[in-house]
Amino acid sequence: MEKMVEYTALIALVEHVFVAMGCPQDQAKTGAMALVSADLRGIDSHGVARLSGYVRLWEAKRVNAAPRIAIIHETPSTAVMDGDQGLGLVVAPAAMDVAISKAAQVGTGWVSVGNSNHFGIAAFHAMRALEKNMIGIVMTNASALVAPTFSKERMLGTNPICVAVPSGDEPPFVADMATTTAANGKLEMLQRKQLEAPLGWIQDAEGNQVTDAHALKNGGALLPLGGNREQGSHKGYALGSIVDIFSAVLSGANFGPWVPPFPAYVPMPDNQPGKGVGHFFGAMRIDAFRKSEDFKRDMDLWIRRFRAADPITADQPVLIPGDPERAMEQHRRMHGIPLLEVVWQDLATIAEKFNIKF
Amino acid sequence: MEKMVEYTALIALVEHVFVAMGCPQDQAKTGAMALVSADLRGIDSHGVARLSGYVRLWEAKRVNAAPRIAIIHETPSTAVMDGDQGLGLVVAPAAMDVAISKAAQVGTGWVSVGNSNHFGIAAFHAMRALEKNMIGIVMTNASALVAPTFSKERMLGTNPICVAVPSGDEPPFVADMATTTAANGKLEMLQRKQLEAPLGWIQDAEGNQVTDAHALKNGGALLPLGGNREQGSHKGYALGSIVDIFSAVLSGANFGPWVPPFPAYVPMPDNQPGKGVGHFFGAMRIDAFRKSEDFKRDMDLWIRRFRAADPITADQPVLIPGDPERAMEQHRRMHGIPLLEVVWQDLATIAEKFNIKF
Repeated sequence: MEKMVEYTALIALVEHVFVAMGCPQDQAKTGAMALVSADLRGIDSHGVARLSGYVRLWEAKRVNAAPRIAIIHETPSTAVMDGDQGLGLVVAPAAMDVAISKAAQVGTGWVSVGNSNHFGIAAFHAMRALEKNMIGIVMTNASALVAPTFSKERMLGTNPICVAVPSGDEPPFVADMATTTAANGKLEMLQRKQLEAPLGWIQDAEGNQVTDAHALKNGGALLPLGGNREQGSHKGYALGSIVDIFSAVLSGANFGPWVPPFPAYVPMPDNQPGKGVGHFFGAMRIDAFRKSEDFKRDMDLWIRRFRAADPITADQPVLIPGDPERAMEQHRRMHGIPLLEVVWQDLATIAEKFNIKF
Repeated sequence: MEKMVEYTALIALVEHVFVAMGCPQDQAKTGAMALVSADLRGIDSHGVARLSGYVRLWEAKRVNAAPRIAIIHETPSTAVMDGDQGLGLVVAPAAMDVAISKAAQVGTGWVSVGNSNHFGIAAFHAMRALEKNMIGIVMTNASALVAPTFSKERMLGTNPICVAVPSGDEPPFVADMATTTAANGKLEMLQRKQLEAPLGWIQDAEGNQVTDAHALKNGGALLPLGGNREQGSHKGYALGSIVDIFSAVLSGANFGPWVPPFPAYVPMPDNQPGKGVGHFFGAMRIDAFRKSEDFKRDMDLWIRRFRAADPITADQPVLIPGDPERAMEQHRRMHGIPLLEVVWQDLATIAEKFNIKF
């Protein structure tokens, strides 16, 4: 059973919760918009379903609700920032804005961030660049769920990459993807529905590819994009590694198997080499390369030509990255966001705990 | 049958051929080293086996042997360059050097290049950054062989991404990968050996996944990394698209189905929107983010920890991106490069044509 809720009501709830936790008002609002943007875009696993997880991290003192987010080193086009254990939902927009302001000055801006936490969906942060006529690039590492090619050990997070590119008359190009075959959220959906996973998504504790959607709970692992060596899983492994290095080795955050887990009840890994979770942000001003109008004309042509590519079946046209999420957002802004009963109950419990009307 | 040839002899031959074509001496040497670096690293499809292809492009006046490679727009951290129809093997090092010198000044440098040609392997160019204590990032588009998810039409090249990261005592991290399940060179090897391709590498003209390694000749297409929608081919499609946009829409080169073909006998696509092939180069100074020694200590730890990840089978340890190519290069520097009889004959014919002793 699902309940339909207006997205504005969800943003208001989350904002109130963050303020009750001690977030400054403006940060609470931005963080709430970041979180609910996942629900709007149809990435239900990263939206309000995680609110109780963030609250538990705060209760466990792993999240600092009023962080002093600071630049600790910089050059004209780069910065390393310390998230001061803040909500990634709040740290990420601040870091993206630094990247954007550096790009405004010298053409591009690149910010590696340590000592942060889970930042929701990458697309929300990358798309901040679009309104400034810039390409936005966002990555983050995450706690280890993914086995490298040839390994049975979990070493990498699902480590997403998002690239958002402005266009002219066409909607923007927004690719936001985990560097695994399938994001963990998709697996969670199969688990809830008691369905099997396709081969190539997960392996068991011995490293055999399996269809049991619960294999992760029994020592298994998600697989890098490609699934197995013959299908190019070493490339997915390399992509996830690049995200890990840019997000954490460049910033001094934790990397590989040392990234802090999202569930507050899971103990921190031993011997952590850095601080918190790491992210990486980039902004490239279009007119640092080419006249904006020329770029946008060609980008529109790119989008139209790919949309018109000869389809295999007439009922499924070729899509541009970002199309499904944009369609979902349009629909959910108008018709509301469907919440599972369990998520609704979860939100009601949180609202009650903080004395918020929901 | 294979012949073993010393790599220095191959570099000398290629250098002489490029000089005979009209390349300035220093460009000829760099271009020759770029080409033969593919043979050294075991990427045989991109090495001297392609020399005759470059010569034919020059004969067809699609390659300008003495290009005026020029910056046509720049900011402190960016540039767009025009390759003047030069050999990509020569244009790419020049562009990478611009990215490196911008990074030396403002922390990072980003160069999009149009009006170029095939540049060999991306790793050669990206690794130029390593000796400067920088991360190197290289991409290029290529003529359309790859069908986007849901399409039967070839729209993208194999569009590789390379990221090279310096380390301390450990060898560097060098990921160089086509954004397809398998690079076209691997398919060519199967074709030569009359073997079938694994499912997930190619589709036929109707969009069915097939094992016929010759399906490309009959209107088929290579598949994006992931292979099919369920296994995440939309992610490989998005990655190839990002490479295309950064390399060509940012620079004014041709993109999508309009990229010039490598074989000189294949006619140019109609209505090309830009000039030549496009590339993208990035350099990020390590100490623009963090003290070099701290980064290198953590990068060494990263590499050692991943190398020590629990393997599925004891006889196949987990690899770090770049390991196989580095081992191959060490072996071939010492023992020579094995050339197929057909490649050897091809080189002998070229040498004879240009009156070069081989």
